[in-house]
Amino acid sequence: MNILVTLNSNYINPLKVMLWSLFFNNRGRDFHIYLMHSSLTGQELADLDQYINACGHQFSAIRISSEYFAGAPVVKHYSQEMYYRLLAHRFLPVDLERILYLDPDILIINPVDALYEMDLEGHLYAASYHKRALVKGINMLRLKAYEMEEYFNSGVLLMNLPLQRERIREEEIFDYLEKNRNRLILPDQDLLNALYGKEIKKVDEVLYNYDTRFYHYYRIQSSGKVNMDYIMKNTVVLHFCGKKKPWHEQYTGEFHSLYKHYECLALGKTAHDSIGASAAAN
Amino acid sequence: MNILVTLNSNYINPLKVMLWSLFFNNRGRDFHIYLMHSSLTGQELADLDQYINACGHQFSAIRISSEYFAGAPVVKHYSQEMYYRLLAHRFLPVDLERILYLDPDILIINPVDALYEMDLEGHLYAASYHKRALVKGINMLRLKAYEMEEYFNSGVLLMNLPLQRERIREEEIFDYLEKNRNRLILPDQDLLNALYGKEIKKVDEVLYNYDTRFYHYYRIQSSGKVNMDYIMKNTVVLHFCGKKKPWHEQYTGEFHSLYKHYECLALGKTAHDSIGASAAAN
Repeated sequence: MNILVTLNSNYINPLKVMLWSLFFNNRGRDFHIYLMHSSLTGQELADLDQYINACGHQFSAIRISSEYFAGAPVVKHYSQEMYYRLLAHRFLPVDLERILYLDPDILIINPVDALYEMDLEGHLYAASYHKRALVKGINMLRLKAYEMEEYFNSGVLLMNLPLQRERIREEEIFDYLEKNRNRLILPDQDLLNALYGKEIKKVDEVLYNYDTRFYHYYRIQSSGKVNMDYIMKNTVVLHFCGKKKPWHEQYTGEFHSLYKHYECLALGKTAHDSIGASAAAN
Repeated sequence: MNILVTLNSNYINPLKVMLWSLFFNNRGRDFHIYLMHSSLTGQELADLDQYINACGHQFSAIRISSEYFAGAPVVKHYSQEMYYRLLAHRFLPVDLERILYLDPDILIINPVDALYEMDLEGHLYAASYHKRALVKGINMLRLKAYEMEEYFNSGVLLMNLPLQRERIREEEIFDYLEKNRNRLILPDQDLLNALYGKEIKKVDEVLYNYDTRFYHYYRIQSSGKVNMDYIMKNTVVLHFCGKKKPWHEQYTGEFHSLYKHYECLALGKTAHDSIGASAAAN
């Protein structure tokens, strides 16, 4: 399975935790991790390569020259990395047909097969929308000119690469940014929704993009069905959305202990060697 | 390493979860699990044997005839199993020198080597005492005639079997029970403290018997040192003490997600085969 990640140096450890959880809960599957970046050092890339290889998987780093986006609009403090998710098809190998983009602030706690292999039915992407009334209301207001039906979260994106190569145009993206630069809050997510929202296949957020801030919301909304037992048995992606991250000192939340345990497993001195190698051998 | 467990049919699944966490976080170590019981069926024993073997470890069941304790005092609703921890040395193989007793309502989240291999310095047991002032006060009052210094929790007990064979006498235990049957609340734990409290080596409860009900207490008492990061890196035994258990529907607590994830790993259809076998191979 092909996995796409994009990050800067600050997120290397969370990325390792996410990848370790992915490998561990998908034992017996082979992964090829593609990293799009602009600022990682050779040492950092070598470390990631060693890590992923020790876990029994493949790694490719794709460095994007800053010149490539020299003519693109700059929005607030956002770096050019905001474009990577939308333009990944331009930089990935031409024979790649499908890739799953994952944010680094994620734990994968069950097999990803059903998501990865789903029929995209002619959509550019598959993604979950965060349909809480409040969130939706705010975003609908902010981007109402674009007739969004739902607000898709861009942290987990299954990509239909051949179709993207046909349909997604840089000029369209840059043009939209120029016109809306003052209205955008999360530029990549806003872009995805505004330009391609109607071409995204919806997948269940509880399974594929569970927002860890809303444990009680999900439980109450589902009349108790989505409790801890259900989550652990069914949810694939736990997404630690928001500013407070589980690797921060002051974090609290229902999935804190789980995240920190995975952090130890992933970053411990020998953990990835022993489990990774044996997972790959199964 | 030798591990002792005692249980009835209601705790078979929690036992599997505890064992799976033990095996997984002690990859590369060999375990021999001794189960003392009086009521498990042949089918239940065969299932446990298969489970532990599939994980790459050994299993021995020791059935204790109810006739053995026919003359022993009966306290309230407690079964004869309350004697097992104190008299295990009578039933285990005579050449066994050391064994670690573990309750089934436990997760092992780090290597147990340092605990298992510690110098017992002539003590009968090593155990943690739960030294919260409130708990200690209540128990000191209740058993004050016995001059306890601390109240040891009997859920994690490292046993010095040769010394126990020398010093622990059934008559002494039965005699104590006869005289105190109306004052005992947790008979096996009370017995351990009253009769052998001074012959128990103290070990750090934060490391070896962390009471999951008291996350905030530990954190505040330690001026913030024992936070989630510290626990995940250092604590070996998470003990889900009390009546509310993490496998109950209504449970809440800081380690709920971690427990339920381990439950899935331990009880999932293929989990113990794939990980267990590979863990054993390392």
